[in-house]
Amino acid sequence: MAGNSFGQAFRVTTFGESHGEGVGAVIDGCPPRIRLSREDFVRDMARRRPGTGSHSTPRSEEDRVEILSGVFEDLTTGAPIALFIRNRDVDSRPYEILRRLFRPAHGDYTYFKKYGHFDFRGGGRYSARETAARVAAGVVAGKILEPQGVRVVAYTLELGGIRAESINLDSIEKSPLYCPDPISSQRMEEPVSNAGKEGDSLGGIAEIRVTGCPAGLGDPVFDKLDADLAKAVMSIGTVKGVEIGAGFEAARLKGSENNDPLTPNGFGTNRAGGILGGISNGDEIVLRVAMKPIPSIGQEQDTIDREGHPAKMSFTGRHDIAAIPRIIPVLEAMVKIVLADHYLRSKTIT
Amino acid sequence: MAGNSFGQAFRVTTFGESHGEGVGAVIDGCPPRIRLSREDFVRDMARRRPGTGSHSTPRSEEDRVEILSGVFEDLTTGAPIALFIRNRDVDSRPYEILRRLFRPAHGDYTYFKKYGHFDFRGGGRYSARETAARVAAGVVAGKILEPQGVRVVAYTLELGGIRAESINLDSIEKSPLYCPDPISSQRMEEPVSNAGKEGDSLGGIAEIRVTGCPAGLGDPVFDKLDADLAKAVMSIGTVKGVEIGAGFEAARLKGSENNDPLTPNGFGTNRAGGILGGISNGDEIVLRVAMKPIPSIGQEQDTIDREGHPAKMSFTGRHDIAAIPRIIPVLEAMVKIVLADHYLRSKTIT
Amino acid sequence: MAGNSFGQAFRVTTFGESHGEGVGAVIDGCPPRIRLSREDFVRDMARRRPGTGSHSTPRSEEDRVEILSGVFEDLTTGAPIALFIRNRDVDSRPYEILRRLFRPAHGDYTYFKKYGHFDFRGGGRYSARETAARVAAGVVAGKILEPQGVRVVAYTLELGGIRAESINLDSIEKSPLYCPDPISSQRMEEPVSNAGKEGDSLGGIAEIRVTGCPAGLGDPVFDKLDADLAKAVMSIGTVKGVEIGAGFEAARLKGSENNDPLTPNGFGTNRAGGILGGISNGDEIVLRVAMKPIPSIGQEQDTIDREGHPAKMSFTGRHDIAAIPRIIPVLEAMVKIVLADHYLRSKTIT
Amino acid sequence: MAGNSFGQAFRVTTFGESHGEGVGAVIDGCPPRIRLSREDFVRDMARRRPGTGSHSTPRSEEDRVEILSGVFEDLTTGAPIALFIRNRDVDSRPYEILRRLFRPAHGDYTYFKKYGHFDFRGGGRYSARETAARVAAGVVAGKILEPQGVRVVAYTLELGGIRAESINLDSIEKSPLYCPDPISSQRMEEPVSNAGKEGDSLGGIAEIRVTGCPAGLGDPVFDKLDADLAKAVMSIGTVKGVEIGAGFEAARLKGSENNDPLTPNGFGTNRAGGILGGISNGDEIVLRVAMKPIPSIGQEQDTIDREGHPAKMSFTGRHDIAAIPRIIPVLEAMVKIVLADHYLRSKTIT
Repeated sequence: MAGNSFGQAFRVTTFGESHGEGVGAVIDGCPPRIRLSREDFVRDMARRRPGTGSHSTPRSEEDRVEILSGVFEDLTTGAPIALFIRNRDVDSRPYEILRRLFRPAHGDYTYFKKYGHFDFRGGGRYSARETAARVAAGVVAGKILEPQGVRVVAYTLELGGIRAESINLDSIEKSPLYCPDPISSQRMEEPVSNAGKEGDSLGGIAEIRVTGCPAGLGDPVFDKLDADLAKAVMSIGTVKGVEIGAGFEAARLKGSENNDPLTPNGFGTNRAGGILGGISNGDEIVLRVAMKPIPSIGQEQDTIDREGHPAKMSFTGRHDIAAIPRIIPVLEAMVKIVLADHYLRSKTIT
Repeated sequence: MAGNSFGQAFRVTTFGESHGEGVGAVIDGCPPRIRLSREDFVRDMARRRPGTGSHSTPRSEEDRVEILSGVFEDLTTGAPIALFIRNRDVDSRPYEILRRLFRPAHGDYTYFKKYGHFDFRGGGRYSARETAARVAAGVVAGKILEPQGVRVVAYTLELGGIRAESINLDSIEKSPLYCPDPISSQRMEEPVSNAGKEGDSLGGIAEIRVTGCPAGLGDPVFDKLDADLAKAVMSIGTVKGVEIGAGFEAARLKGSENNDPLTPNGFGTNRAGGILGGISNGDEIVLRVAMKPIPSIGQEQDTIDREGHPAKMSFTGRHDIAAIPRIIPVLEAMVKIVLADHYLRSKTIT
Repeated sequence: MAGNSFGQAFRVTTFGESHGEGVGAVIDGCPPRIRLSREDFVRDMARRRPGTGSHSTPRSEEDRVEILSGVFEDLTTGAPIALFIRNRDVDSRPYEILRRLFRPAHGDYTYFKKYGHFDFRGGGRYSARETAARVAAGVVAGKILEPQGVRVVAYTLELGGIRAESINLDSIEKSPLYCPDPISSQRMEEPVSNAGKEGDSLGGIAEIRVTGCPAGLGDPVFDKLDADLAKAVMSIGTVKGVEIGAGFEAARLKGSENNDPLTPNGFGTNRAGGILGGISNGDEIVLRVAMKPIPSIGQEQDTIDREGHPAKMSFTGRHDIAAIPRIIPVLEAMVKIVLADHYLRSKTIT
Repeated sequence: MAGNSFGQAFRVTTFGESHGEGVGAVIDGCPPRIRLSREDFVRDMARRRPGTGSHSTPRSEEDRVEILSGVFEDLTTGAPIALFIRNRDVDSRPYEILRRLFRPAHGDYTYFKKYGHFDFRGGGRYSARETAARVAAGVVAGKILEPQGVRVVAYTLELGGIRAESINLDSIEKSPLYCPDPISSQRMEEPVSNAGKEGDSLGGIAEIRVTGCPAGLGDPVFDKLDADLAKAVMSIGTVKGVEIGAGFEAARLKGSENNDPLTPNGFGTNRAGGILGGISNGDEIVLRVAMKPIPSIGQEQDTIDREGHPAKMSFTGRHDIAAIPRIIPVLEAMVKIVLADHYLRSKTIT
């Protein structure tokens, strides 16, 4: 049942598969008179696109976003904005084996169980390719947030056991791993390189910061801002954990340590991560997200076929070693979508 | 905008405030011909109710659930089931100070910023009292799941720096702290007692296990089962983090370590926590939830008043030291609501 | 599946049955700081309440609306507003025969087919009693519309073959049949009286006029204002037809006759009924609604029992002869709910 | 706010404008393993397409439906089905005047008022062109209904003052006006021809019949089957009225005349139009829809420009004289979408 949409006032529906015609998004609820053109998508689509480095897949996708509707003379009209990114370079022969075998830690098994029939080529609907549509939708969300002064930045906090020791937002885009600490970024290359040689893969932890978010976004009681953010990031395939502000660490603090004092100049600390009672408090919003390692690895793994017989499988296709750099723009996109949605929703109560 | 509902096929809307007439829930979408009566709610409402021990608030609430609609001759009819829990013992005088001052780490500040006007007595709408309505709704969700063999159990995994060393599900209900390890449960009493003496409070980590869940629940791509579970638990006031299966630990594993091998007898390991590609895989579903310490503490704290002037505040009202035991039944309820919703949703594709 | 809610930004969920505990509504999305108290409901609840005249049922319901939540110190808080109207005078013995027999033209048969089990007493969930909850919700919707200068008035246009020959809005409340033409109102009494003597019942046609509605309410393409209005009124049990502006008559006009010319002073005519392209044009909104005669009549009718055997049935219970006067306030309420919803929705695009 | 979607379990979102890239639909919730290919759309797209006769616009659209997603090896997968119909032959120069002037009885004025900025070319988003996407979605809905034996047929009941005197479903497709009575079809040609000569246009009345619909579709209380049908057809631009079964005529009948007796062999009559209490009763579903004449006419009309100054306008572009034949497939599509949605929804309560 209709699980491919997100948001209420700013509602994003994605469609498409990895090796079908393409992937796309329809955005319903974008206000009119916002300047938008094809060029606006170029930067973020390029950031999400698989690169050419040792740690990302060599698949060459151009990821050009076509605006199919909702924009007239470079301005949004209030009508649904349909975005489409046509697939290219889609040799699906390597995936023919998936007609028979389930890849461990992928959705193959569960899609087969649920639907009986599914497009298994490259993961089909549950491929990371679907996130290209989210990044495109995030660009539109960003257009709503920017005039309000809201800025969303995500970066690699931890990778291959190396944790960024300082956070310098200006360093992020200079790092191929989107790490905000140049020295740690350098050090992260080694475990990535090693995993690549071993035919293995790595997960990691990303952090997201939202500055300039006004107080008052978020709705009681189920659509709390943190609840919607948690859902948004957890809906990305490889994400296995999310925490806001002090997060899991808060579970080990006492109230006297964890409570952020209110002062005439704002909050004294920000263990809350910018959200109180499910509503933004005007402070920086901070969340962290844990990603599992990419399941597709070169090493041989045990699996079963559709009849349940045991089988061996090793994956030789094009895949990332560390997915986290590609997920960074997706995280930003999802957070922007949540914020744009709640920003528009907040207008109905004034 | 409409943030007080959760679920699609099994849709729960809660209403009510801590010191108003009461709290309640309307459930739309419950199938007909399910046996349901007032007595079915007694056990879980009692488990959620503040106890009499040193670590929970002495407020005496009876929390009797009235079934206002949707049940005829002890069977559900398919019509909306309205449940109501009348408030009692509601001396709201101690809260009069909140007309002026914001409690640190509570929703007072953000509700004031968002709504200008709010029922501040005991937290009003964002009070933990609202979760009584969720627990009641969870009972109905449980009635849908039980015949399918689905069982949901939550327990205290960590409290006051003490972590359960063994998981014995039969021990949970015997522990006042809902800890599945009797020895750890005993040891947890000390930090709780100490925090109480210091006028302080504690957070903790809970774990939730779902057994008997069939493969195939969960929807792509935004309404993944793990995404909806994350939202469901994060919508509880004190929750600051959530992880599925290996969770944050998965971020430090390699693919070869984290991938659960498929065997003819099921999954060899369960680092996925029972969910692949957003869909249940038939294995046990495991998630962990981090809760911050209760913000209301006896110690004096810095805050501001509605005009922004600095003030001091110490809270002498009835409040828990460690909220986690009261949240256990709420976590179970929210997980049941998610599963009942996705179970009903799964029927539309067959 | 969740069919008991209406609206998006102003979302009304009703619950309750004719002979259960009561009926109620939960409103999610009402803006804060709107003055609201129990007294605000008295007038409309009284208008909907069965009267004592020859043409309406003598059932004595007091229909006092309890505000269970969402209002603090006589101001809405932005939290869900739960309204409850307790049932009284609920002798359900006369309905015991419905355990066996289906009443013609009622929902008994279809509810039995759909749910297998239903509260048949007085129609249970599909009783006209449910509309009391709608009227209560309509009062809250009206509170949002009034400051905008929007006024909604419904009246009896045709009854028993008599059509109002003039529309004098001030005459409506003076007519026991809510007819805006005093002479026609008088003349309508005769067919009503005759039908009563014959153990029969009457339908009728109501007209609804909305003045002061600003241009710009309504959304493309499915949530057109006229589409939502049509659904809103058609969701009332006895309604069998709805038309906007010239309605069915427009089907017989030519474009040159039906097009409303635009002039510097507004529209020259209003055959559109105040809506163009699904969006209000600032002119008066006009719709007409056809209601079938009440199915419960004193005359003996053919029916079947639950096993499909033929049976005879005549209804001796308390029922209206002409339901239209009681439906007038329900029509107003539903139109207000649609307008309040679209008014709040329109704020998200500015 | 998100008004471009319809349905819950079978959810259709349309996008696109008359003179943009094209129009399309995304269907979320279609069950897997349904055979679907490009050819399935050809017949209905051709029926909706403007013809070459005297009474329809000569615009040559090929209306080929591209399946962008959700189908693999000619079977649906359960993933969203995106359909796209590229616009051709889109000379938008004739519409340049609409940058300044509002066409009477069109959405130009209200779109300008609501959005400030809109794609005015050929009506843009509110063009009849959008209905091509609905027809495509209706084909998919039909695929769900067909195996259940549900058949939906719409036809022209009245046009230019001529009413079909007999209903012969086999005659419909043979009539260029989709009239089920060959003689009346012939007679309807004259008023159409006359209106064409006069630079005028005609409306009409269509009737829709659904056979084979099982009892039990429809949800209380707001999502009644008749309420959703009313919304569905009223969401089509030119529709100004809708009635179910006896419809407006029921308002003039007595209960004893209007009640359909229940017999061991089904309902004795069908004044209810196949729906009781908002739920299908297993009988034929019958509804009628009134359409206003096409607003674009050759005759000169009064209007205003964007600054409110008076102006004259006559339309010379390509437009239908009688739109009803083109709307017939759209009505069928919308009815199918409603039924497919409620069919899937009904599965959640079993």
